[in-house]
Amino acid sequence: MVSLSSPANIESFYKFTDDVSNPELFESWKPKIASYQKALSSALPEEYKLPESEIPSTLDDESFNTVKFLFETKHLSAAEHEITESSATQLLEKLSSKKLTAVEVLKAFAHRAVIAHQLTNLACEFFINEGLARAKQLDEQFATTGKLAGPLHGIPISLKEQIGYAGKITHGGWVGWLDNIPKEDAVTVQVLRNLGAVFYVRTNEPQTLMHLDSNNNIVGRTRNPHNSLLTAGGSSGGEGACVGAKGSPLGVGTDIGGSIRAPAAFSGTYGLRPTTRRISTFGGVSSGKGQESVVAVAGPLAGHLEDIELFMKSYINDGQPWNIDQWCIPVPWRDVPVPEPSKLTVAIMYDDGIVKALPPIERGLKYTEEKLKKAGVNVIEFKPLACEELYKLANEMYSCDGNYAQKEMLRPSGEPLLPLTKWALSFGKGDHAYTVTENRELNYQRDNLRKLYNDYFVKNKVDLILCPNYCGTAPVCAQDGVEGPYYWGYTSHFNVLDLPGLVVPTGLYADKNVDVKSSHQPRSEIEAIEYNKYKPELVHDAPIALQLVGRRYFDEEVVAIGKLFKQVLELKE
Amino acid sequence: MVSLSSPANIESFYKFTDDVSNPELFESWKPKIASYQKALSSALPEEYKLPESEIPSTLDDESFNTVKFLFETKHLSAAEHEITESSATQLLEKLSSKKLTAVEVLKAFAHRAVIAHQLTNLACEFFINEGLARAKQLDEQFATTGKLAGPLHGIPISLKEQIGYAGKITHGGWVGWLDNIPKEDAVTVQVLRNLGAVFYVRTNEPQTLMHLDSNNNIVGRTRNPHNSLLTAGGSSGGEGACVGAKGSPLGVGTDIGGSIRAPAAFSGTYGLRPTTRRISTFGGVSSGKGQESVVAVAGPLAGHLEDIELFMKSYINDGQPWNIDQWCIPVPWRDVPVPEPSKLTVAIMYDDGIVKALPPIERGLKYTEEKLKKAGVNVIEFKPLACEELYKLANEMYSCDGNYAQKEMLRPSGEPLLPLTKWALSFGKGDHAYTVTENRELNYQRDNLRKLYNDYFVKNKVDLILCPNYCGTAPVCAQDGVEGPYYWGYTSHFNVLDLPGLVVPTGLYADKNVDVKSSHQPRSEIEAIEYNKYKPELVHDAPIALQLVGRRYFDEEVVAIGKLFKQVLELKE
Repeated sequence: MVSLSSPANIESFYKFTDDVSNPELFESWKPKIASYQKALSSALPEEYKLPESEIPSTLDDESFNTVKFLFETKHLSAAEHEITESSATQLLEKLSSKKLTAVEVLKAFAHRAVIAHQLTNLACEFFINEGLARAKQLDEQFATTGKLAGPLHGIPISLKEQIGYAGKITHGGWVGWLDNIPKEDAVTVQVLRNLGAVFYVRTNEPQTLMHLDSNNNIVGRTRNPHNSLLTAGGSSGGEGACVGAKGSPLGVGTDIGGSIRAPAAFSGTYGLRPTTRRISTFGGVSSGKGQESVVAVAGPLAGHLEDIELFMKSYINDGQPWNIDQWCIPVPWRDVPVPEPSKLTVAIMYDDGIVKALPPIERGLKYTEEKLKKAGVNVIEFKPLACEELYKLANEMYSCDGNYAQKEMLRPSGEPLLPLTKWALSFGKGDHAYTVTENRELNYQRDNLRKLYNDYFVKNKVDLILCPNYCGTAPVCAQDGVEGPYYWGYTSHFNVLDLPGLVVPTGLYADKNVDVKSSHQPRSEIEAIEYNKYKPELVHDAPIALQLVGRRYFDEEVVAIGKLFKQVLELKE
Repeated sequence: MVSLSSPANIESFYKFTDDVSNPELFESWKPKIASYQKALSSALPEEYKLPESEIPSTLDDESFNTVKFLFETKHLSAAEHEITESSATQLLEKLSSKKLTAVEVLKAFAHRAVIAHQLTNLACEFFINEGLARAKQLDEQFATTGKLAGPLHGIPISLKEQIGYAGKITHGGWVGWLDNIPKEDAVTVQVLRNLGAVFYVRTNEPQTLMHLDSNNNIVGRTRNPHNSLLTAGGSSGGEGACVGAKGSPLGVGTDIGGSIRAPAAFSGTYGLRPTTRRISTFGGVSSGKGQESVVAVAGPLAGHLEDIELFMKSYINDGQPWNIDQWCIPVPWRDVPVPEPSKLTVAIMYDDGIVKALPPIERGLKYTEEKLKKAGVNVIEFKPLACEELYKLANEMYSCDGNYAQKEMLRPSGEPLLPLTKWALSFGKGDHAYTVTENRELNYQRDNLRKLYNDYFVKNKVDLILCPNYCGTAPVCAQDGVEGPYYWGYTSHFNVLDLPGLVVPTGLYADKNVDVKSSHQPRSEIEAIEYNKYKPELVHDAPIALQLVGRRYFDEEVVAIGKLFKQVLELKE
């Protein structure tokens, strides 16, 4: 086994041929990229912008905490501060009792989002004026009729850019899609708008949508709002940064391997990867068209746990997405009470046998375990269950078309491949295309693993698996030259299994003095990459978050248990 | 366009190479087949059997009506007659009030099933003694505890042989699987047993499970219980014959293209193809392992509509199959009242544009349309919606592994290919194997068609599509030398769309004097095959049934509307 410390070594993993990037062709796309970037920056209202002089020039060289800055800055008024620190649920009460208007709410979040963007590069597109017009119309409608437009009346919601939006460029991180302007909104946009939501920002994501980082050749990388040296995660990294910085109370991401959960964890917010077929993904740009072996989902990120429930319940019960997307099952969101601790069994996983939790996450798990035990929860050990098979299977399923779909989306622009794109194109057998028979065999293996886990939950009366969301906190991405994060297993396992996963912060943060490097000896190349990447002094201040995984379609129970965690961990939001 | 009248012409459709049948190898399997057949015939209790002298020797040459024979025969006692004419729902009442014992109930159905088998060849396996032991145990348990074992306490249920049964050969119609003896029951067997069901017969199906007829090289063909010259349909043809002849009050079939619905319609029973993921298919023998483009389902056949609901409700709400099969969604069966006719919109399809309904079915549709209108139902015309695409897609999806899975299952025995197997191996592009990318493209096309239909239902406020289940009644199979039925579109369309379909008899029967050949000019080879096959004098007495198709996951509404149809059509069960 080779110990790895530089990206050059990662080439040993490469299983693809770069027959898509084409510097000459890419040259011809640069004016389009420039004009896209210009539109983005000129969409930032002057009155909201932080003066250039106050933007540290060292964001990519020294840790900068945007969250702390925004909490303390005088650029936000007291009223804006109060609004943006509130949950959507609290805002709804104030909107319905006329203590606030939708315009006031949007202005506050838009202001905070703009500053957050200046510091973290979270957005692909702002359209605050459209949002204000919509908010105004909602206010007027409410004043006239006395009726709220819906259960999300006047709530600003940020959207991952990949989600199709009528009349707006929807590129999904692929340069070659800069000409794509959907005629119709994605189903989720339609549903949320019908519920009264207000849109004003679309957020960043990686090239190919297949990195746990958010970097592309269109607007570049999003920084972590807690520490500017760290990744904001991916692929919904712009959402993580936006919600984490309280630039929006609620955001929508998508997740096929961890893309909601990594950004939520890295930015210290809540995030739910629901079971498939509850929240529509119809109308987004992706390379997953017709790929059904491991299916992408959409779901919410929020700074307040109650808003995760607000989103799910109103989206499903009031939004009835099955009327516009047959893929969504017509099944209501159930009201599930917070469970009694003594009736709960939680199985904890410290190590999936592939990449053991790094010191900060290990500390977070131990801390949580103690708190749970003290509260009376029955805590047992989760021994890795076929995790190697799950990891292998995820990667094979992603790429079993021999990277055909990805390459077809990269080719039109000839854009250069980013390091993590090369990593993603090396999943499974990389460029090797499977036969239909081989793909069916993967599906069959997957179903056996799903059975194994379902049996585990039922036979052991386990309510929840508590585990890392990623082996570490948000890692450094650019500065160590290794361009991580690389290991998706802690999240992708549950995409293969289609189990709901809720990201919950622990209230703890990485501490360079406490979370010193462990003496654990890496058991594999992938573990060596992640362990060598871990630099306690660089990840200081990064939120420590964990993942709560429940049974398939028991999303409601997972969120209810999340509420118990919030109580037990005495989380402040 | 060539008019077709002999099987030779159907070779023009063939798109496969027979590289699996091997006469020499097959020779070595013949003793195993003989011993299987012997076990079947020797499992028929002497005291239940019809004397050989009373079995017409002309069953395959002249129409014989087993249903009528059984209704009139003195071989069944008055008590047996009363029991077997009852619904499971009625029997449950008598069982719980101790007016009947489970042993009495099983004996009556087993007796009727044995005679029905002698006349129609419906079974692969009888195990009446095991059933009686189980019934006795249920009676004793009830006597001791005063508690019923479950909501299906003492109800005899027939099972399609393909559904795995612990300790019993489970071949699925493939000779090469005669050595397959599952160690565990299929999930559906486990669920039903837990609910109190009693098993005693496993029923016939075709080679490959992919014919709308039930013929194989193991026990041969099942005859239609209404007319021995006609097919009983397939692939759950043994179920259709058994339930149709009242050899069981409830049966379980499976359906990937019409395999519950064709047998139910052909034998004049009710049959429901539920939406996917409501009834488990886990633990069955099939060629569909890992194939997710068009997914097989399991569902009930019953002589009484109320038993379709009894099955679905108790299986789902009490059986909670998701605890043993994660594929099943944990969503209760909802109580839905019979709709008011004036609030109902039914869209009727007489012709899908590929094969127009034959005269008896056209008459059934017109008759039903008039009755519905008279009752106040809003009836509109259903114009074919992308039916050609749906038909093409179904066939491509079945075979896009280039027949790999089917051939792997046929090869071990070298058994000869039956005509309808050759037909099934010619679906789509036959032996041509698709790439994963091509398969994904099919899935994508399918999802667009699903959207088209969902939009149709929602935008037009249509509650139900009423359509043929097959272009005709049960056709002749052996005697015309054409070995139909060939056209699956009226059912397979809805497998592609994953819409629930309920088969409802009209109370009408084909009449050689009324349903004379039409002057309709076939528009295609497939229509010509079906129109040329239609012989009014041969299909006389065949039940005329129709299909009720609802929205995805609105199975409950479809069954509730079925109840209205029963009232409106004044159906006698």
